[in-house]
Amino acid sequence: MGTKSIRTALKVDLSKPAREQKGLHNRWHPEVPCCGTIANNEVVKIECLDWTGGQIQNNDSADDVRDVDLTQIHYLSGPFDIESAEPGDVLLVEIQDVQPFEDQPWGFTGVFSRENGGGFLDEIYPKAAKAIWDFEGIFCSSRHIPGVRFAGLIHPGILGCAPSAEILAEWNKREGELIAANTTGRDVAKPPEPVNVHGGAADEELTAKIGREGARTIPGRPEHGGNCDIKNLSRGSKVYLPIHVAGAKFSVGDLHFSQGDGEISFCGAIEMAGIITLKFAVIKDGMAKMAMKSPIFRPGPVEPQFGPGRYLTFEGFSVDENGKQHYLDATVAYRQTCLRVIEYLRRYGYDDYQIYLLLSCAPVQGHIAGLVDIPNACTTLGVPMDIFDFDIRPEVGAVKREMGSCAFASS
Amino acid sequence: MGTKSIRTALKVDLSKPAREQKGLHNRWHPEVPCCGTIANNEVVKIECLDWTGGQIQNNDSADDVRDVDLTQIHYLSGPFDIESAEPGDVLLVEIQDVQPFEDQPWGFTGVFSRENGGGFLDEIYPKAAKAIWDFEGIFCSSRHIPGVRFAGLIHPGILGCAPSAEILAEWNKREGELIAANTTGRDVAKPPEPVNVHGGAADEELTAKIGREGARTIPGRPEHGGNCDIKNLSRGSKVYLPIHVAGAKFSVGDLHFSQGDGEISFCGAIEMAGIITLKFAVIKDGMAKMAMKSPIFRPGPVEPQFGPGRYLTFEGFSVDENGKQHYLDATVAYRQTCLRVIEYLRRYGYDDYQIYLLLSCAPVQGHIAGLVDIPNACTTLGVPMDIFDFDIRPEVGAVKREMGSCAFASS
Amino acid sequence: MGTKSIRTALKVDLSKPAREQKGLHNRWHPEVPCCGTIANNEVVKIECLDWTGGQIQNNDSADDVRDVDLTQIHYLSGPFDIESAEPGDVLLVEIQDVQPFEDQPWGFTGVFSRENGGGFLDEIYPKAAKAIWDFEGIFCSSRHIPGVRFAGLIHPGILGCAPSAEILAEWNKREGELIAANTTGRDVAKPPEPVNVHGGAADEELTAKIGREGARTIPGRPEHGGNCDIKNLSRGSKVYLPIHVAGAKFSVGDLHFSQGDGEISFCGAIEMAGIITLKFAVIKDGMAKMAMKSPIFRPGPVEPQFGPGRYLTFEGFSVDENGKQHYLDATVAYRQTCLRVIEYLRRYGYDDYQIYLLLSCAPVQGHIAGLVDIPNACTTLGVPMDIFDFDIRPEVGAVKREMGSCAFASS
Amino acid sequence: MGTKSIRTALKVDLSKPAREQKGLHNRWHPEVPCCGTIANNEVVKIECLDWTGGQIQNNDSADDVRDVDLTQIHYLSGPFDIESAEPGDVLLVEIQDVQPFEDQPWGFTGVFSRENGGGFLDEIYPKAAKAIWDFEGIFCSSRHIPGVRFAGLIHPGILGCAPSAEILAEWNKREGELIAANTTGRDVAKPPEPVNVHGGAADEELTAKIGREGARTIPGRPEHGGNCDIKNLSRGSKVYLPIHVAGAKFSVGDLHFSQGDGEISFCGAIEMAGIITLKFAVIKDGMAKMAMKSPIFRPGPVEPQFGPGRYLTFEGFSVDENGKQHYLDATVAYRQTCLRVIEYLRRYGYDDYQIYLLLSCAPVQGHIAGLVDIPNACTTLGVPMDIFDFDIRPEVGAVKREMGSCAFASS
Repeated sequence: MGTKSIRTALKVDLSKPAREQKGLHNRWHPEVPCCGTIANNEVVKIECLDWTGGQIQNNDSADDVRDVDLTQIHYLSGPFDIESAEPGDVLLVEIQDVQPFEDQPWGFTGVFSRENGGGFLDEIYPKAAKAIWDFEGIFCSSRHIPGVRFAGLIHPGILGCAPSAEILAEWNKREGELIAANTTGRDVAKPPEPVNVHGGAADEELTAKIGREGARTIPGRPEHGGNCDIKNLSRGSKVYLPIHVAGAKFSVGDLHFSQGDGEISFCGAIEMAGIITLKFAVIKDGMAKMAMKSPIFRPGPVEPQFGPGRYLTFEGFSVDENGKQHYLDATVAYRQTCLRVIEYLRRYGYDDYQIYLLLSCAPVQGHIAGLVDIPNACTTLGVPMDIFDFDIRPEVGAVKREMGSCAFASS
Repeated sequence: MGTKSIRTALKVDLSKPAREQKGLHNRWHPEVPCCGTIANNEVVKIECLDWTGGQIQNNDSADDVRDVDLTQIHYLSGPFDIESAEPGDVLLVEIQDVQPFEDQPWGFTGVFSRENGGGFLDEIYPKAAKAIWDFEGIFCSSRHIPGVRFAGLIHPGILGCAPSAEILAEWNKREGELIAANTTGRDVAKPPEPVNVHGGAADEELTAKIGREGARTIPGRPEHGGNCDIKNLSRGSKVYLPIHVAGAKFSVGDLHFSQGDGEISFCGAIEMAGIITLKFAVIKDGMAKMAMKSPIFRPGPVEPQFGPGRYLTFEGFSVDENGKQHYLDATVAYRQTCLRVIEYLRRYGYDDYQIYLLLSCAPVQGHIAGLVDIPNACTTLGVPMDIFDFDIRPEVGAVKREMGSCAFASS
Repeated sequence: MGTKSIRTALKVDLSKPAREQKGLHNRWHPEVPCCGTIANNEVVKIECLDWTGGQIQNNDSADDVRDVDLTQIHYLSGPFDIESAEPGDVLLVEIQDVQPFEDQPWGFTGVFSRENGGGFLDEIYPKAAKAIWDFEGIFCSSRHIPGVRFAGLIHPGILGCAPSAEILAEWNKREGELIAANTTGRDVAKPPEPVNVHGGAADEELTAKIGREGARTIPGRPEHGGNCDIKNLSRGSKVYLPIHVAGAKFSVGDLHFSQGDGEISFCGAIEMAGIITLKFAVIKDGMAKMAMKSPIFRPGPVEPQFGPGRYLTFEGFSVDENGKQHYLDATVAYRQTCLRVIEYLRRYGYDDYQIYLLLSCAPVQGHIAGLVDIPNACTTLGVPMDIFDFDIRPEVGAVKREMGSCAFASS
Repeated sequence: MGTKSIRTALKVDLSKPAREQKGLHNRWHPEVPCCGTIANNEVVKIECLDWTGGQIQNNDSADDVRDVDLTQIHYLSGPFDIESAEPGDVLLVEIQDVQPFEDQPWGFTGVFSRENGGGFLDEIYPKAAKAIWDFEGIFCSSRHIPGVRFAGLIHPGILGCAPSAEILAEWNKREGELIAANTTGRDVAKPPEPVNVHGGAADEELTAKIGREGARTIPGRPEHGGNCDIKNLSRGSKVYLPIHVAGAKFSVGDLHFSQGDGEISFCGAIEMAGIITLKFAVIKDGMAKMAMKSPIFRPGPVEPQFGPGRYLTFEGFSVDENGKQHYLDATVAYRQTCLRVIEYLRRYGYDDYQIYLLLSCAPVQGHIAGLVDIPNACTTLGVPMDIFDFDIRPEVGAVKREMGSCAFASS
């Protein structure tokens, strides 16, 4: 009987290089050594770095964003051995809470330079940019984007179990084929990267192997989830994850204070370090029982609710900015939808980069609308009007305001 | 003072061929003669056919769906001359109500045959299929898909103003280029089609011109909206439409009792004939004032609300069913997401075609999740669990039930 | 197969006196003859008069409200015999739709004169007043209360099954005791009233009996529901009603386009005539199975949703306007809460009677907050800010506007 | 630039008696010395004890609840001097977060003994009882009430500014009159109580004065708010408080992890110690500008949302359990409504006291429904079905389960 605290399964040290911490790793590989064991039905807290591992500072220059080292991304907490988990089981993870560290109540959103990382709109907005967000309880605001304030829909960008060797091989094969066939002049996928690989407690030999074979953590992948960047996987959610190796080898990281659908600027959520509280349960033989190939989840009941009538919603179609018609391409349509919002909001005095950052991290709703009416895909993007401290309804005339500037890189 | 009924601006005759009714038309063209005038700030009722113009019957065979004549699609009500509207203005349309005809309380959802129309999953599900839905007030249910029942999110699939001659020429040019470059073996767009063209009150000569030049109503298009198939453009919504010709020449049609994001089976909403109540207001010079290139809208306050925790949400990625990796392709990802739902729901005894139909028309939420994590796009599809009369939560074991069958075509 | 319309179980004639229509009645009594039979699991439409039976006109005078004849209130549609229903069963009624008559798209809200009916605030606002509301699809607005517009939360004020003779005797006894003990100088309950009694198809003798014994329809009562005036018993709701007589003898009436919690001005909803679509199912022995003494219901999924943050909420306590302390009296507290809203909103130029009418009929949320902290009860009243076309947030200064006037009675 | 933590304006010491801590006090009096100063527009954290000041233990006996010393209730944190605040101003307080202490992740709900404190249903349930709740992130569950689990709607039960001497005199006068006129045999209000008075840093003489004059913190009061126990005054809310003394002298306490409308068992919320994050802003001359007599608030956007159709709602009327008719008495009606829920839920195997506790602390919605239909007031109580891990819908038969027991007092 009596007081019962929740166990912290992993602590991180914000003052120490990530690569020196054995509970962190930055590649998906079945052989990364476990950093701890969690019982079935146990609740634990796990500390996480931000996705850049601390490369970004709370200041007014985007030099750090421009110069970010993407080989180090993302440092994940784990892997954890979940008692009784076996391949074919499903790991039910309940996200009971996510919080920033108490003495670090801020986060950042970045636009990567087109030369180093890029983003969804980098053909149009190639420069590095940054916004710092201050957290005030459940709310956040930014000196770099005045006039907005909203409650966070706080969540982990990444969670998942380790791939088996077979699955890892499949990833490397299919992504390698895409890379091999690439003629676009831009990176289409990231192959295994030995530079800056961190395998947690792995010794030198194993680290080298992980570097040669390990999958990058950048994309989400159907077999295990990973970096899905699903804004609704927030507090209170239950997520069902396929298990491919004994013990599950669960990892988590890339915490977001908030994110918009699409996370369009790539470093686009409000990225933060913090603490996640999770409960684990193993569903024996769950993959077969649930006919599961990819993760499934149920959101929690506490998402910010603005009311359906409080969204100003923009439409976009698969005709690109050069007037070229694409065939049912939802990606092109969503890019156009984002541009429509930028055109609308810049009338209030915002710089385009400020809006680009805002669309990445505010709780905007990106929907597939029509995807069968050849040749046009149609997507919509709903902006909650209540995040602004002025009235953005179309019937109210737009007045340009002094909106300052987001952080840019020095030239 | 005293009772004031709402004027019906157009009546349709369900017993008469659509092509004989002067208030209907089935091409976008600036010269289709107006069928009536609506004052600024007026509220009117407008009657509409279903999108096939009555080709589909309330029976248990999908022969009509298989054999549908797509050259007749869609018969729209209008165009209407809106007083004082000029090019560059914006037409604010408030959707005050949408109702089925009182003596026709049913609608249909179809899967087109791959040979005639197709749909989002036609590579996998090439057959024609159909479900009839009975309306019981705000609810609907189907003898062809037992175990589900839901409130309609009733809306028009199509509304928009006529293109100018210049815009029409641009449509024909860019879609023509897509068609010309097509090597896929399937239709990628539909060029102007003289067969079965109906220009309302147009005389023979004008009808021929409309046939030669008029844009098909199948796709939505960025410059005016059109067939956007946005499920949230429902009762209570305010939509802001660009005006390109004098009088706006507003048309509306393709009423849906309900639709899921993506309307994946193409004939995928619960298609119905009915009556829409609209209020019109002209915003002078609105396009420049609002920096508008495509329509914008605000949903109404009465969408069915299930609570965020009542959605079972599936994830999909841009790796196709053959294991091929695609580059940030949200269309591929959404197709995979749909397949994940089918795999899950078939465990309850449903035929895949039943689920395909259901995902097309039930109020499912299709979201862009991550669209920047190369090479994988991630989309989600949220299924409201409360539309089922049994418990589909993953923690409850799936039991196969007797689920009957949707309607198929005779062989 | 084929089209299937919904049967209309009762039509009313708006041009004929209510007392001449056999499908209507205005007292609760087990012997009122049934006006029709409804099958178990049948869906039917039932037409209803407004609660005054047509005494109120669409004009700008409140003379009709002042002079209303309350002995005629309310004319209910029914009673209906529900097949297989027996005492002890529960009648499950699904409210599938409620609509005004198409050619009568308006309703009214009244403040009764303190001398004839009164209301919750009649000590302070003793005059008769009225507002006429025009319906535009799902929305309504009033020339008598400018600046507001909202979607209806449409519902029946009254539904229930007939009392048994024993229950009726109990009602008359306990309400008679209250009347007998009354020293307040105001009516505290209404005893049976032979004047203007209407027993549907009852002959003269039975009508006289109903007049002597029949319970007035004004109050709701725990044993059967009746005039509960629950705004959330709206479209899509399922209500479970106790059955006390063979055949259930179900009646319905007093349709409301919208109502606020408390319906404070007594004639306080947006009262209308119209059509309700209901589905009936009998749950055998339901009262015992569900331990039911009073009705239970589940609201539908389509209530207007403003978002929790869009309510401006006022607090009130059980200290009355004379500074007298009452003991945990939620009624006193709610009256004070209403007064706080009136004081706040009159700053915008509204007359107090306009606000009194508005609070009665708009979808305001009246909550019990604290009811145990002696001596003060605390209640809250949430006003959805989005029903106003101007900004009522406290941080925006209030500017008096020209708000016209509601209708008053001639003097 | 750089990291910026939020200042903690008051720390409490959980291991030290409350009466020895100068930042706490347990009476409302204008002369309680301030324990700190807060700048206009500052954000601070304030630590709070639970409302009993630590009298209740995390164990399985309700002896502590039975024997609670109510003279010590409630220890509030404060008062704080808010810079620039003057009488007539309004204090805008934004509740940015509320959290339990990290090492004390539990709370309690109690039913007081009828002999010592009592509660809303103490005539029927006179015994002391208790439930301990464990917090798992945003969720809570109790070993004393199996089968339920829900997200907290976390909030402070009490916040307000100090009364002026005149207002305090008015409180003592009017509550004294109620006490003087009391013939009910139960306490109807609590007069000033010198025993166990704690005036923070007050010296002996001032403490004695506060004991003689200071108002008890038990009731909320219209002039300043205080113990309103409004469950929706949760995270993200903005509350506008009248200011009556220079510096405002703001106090806060009585944190609740969750509470139902009415907080019916008196010790009825999930009571906890913890930390509240608040932002303060002074609105000059706000009381006159806002015509404010009592506090006003706007809830935050993150309340748990179950969807309107997920509430099972019970009706109650002002006919008491002895069959006596009361006149429009919402308090009587709400008591009956609560009893209807108990009758319904006990069918699943719960003890009545378990349900009484649950209704007190779970996020149930208590609404005023009709309050004008003489003689019956009607109230409703909506129970969110999703807090149960079994299906409580009426159409699913109730099966008795093994539900254990809440904690009772030793006899």
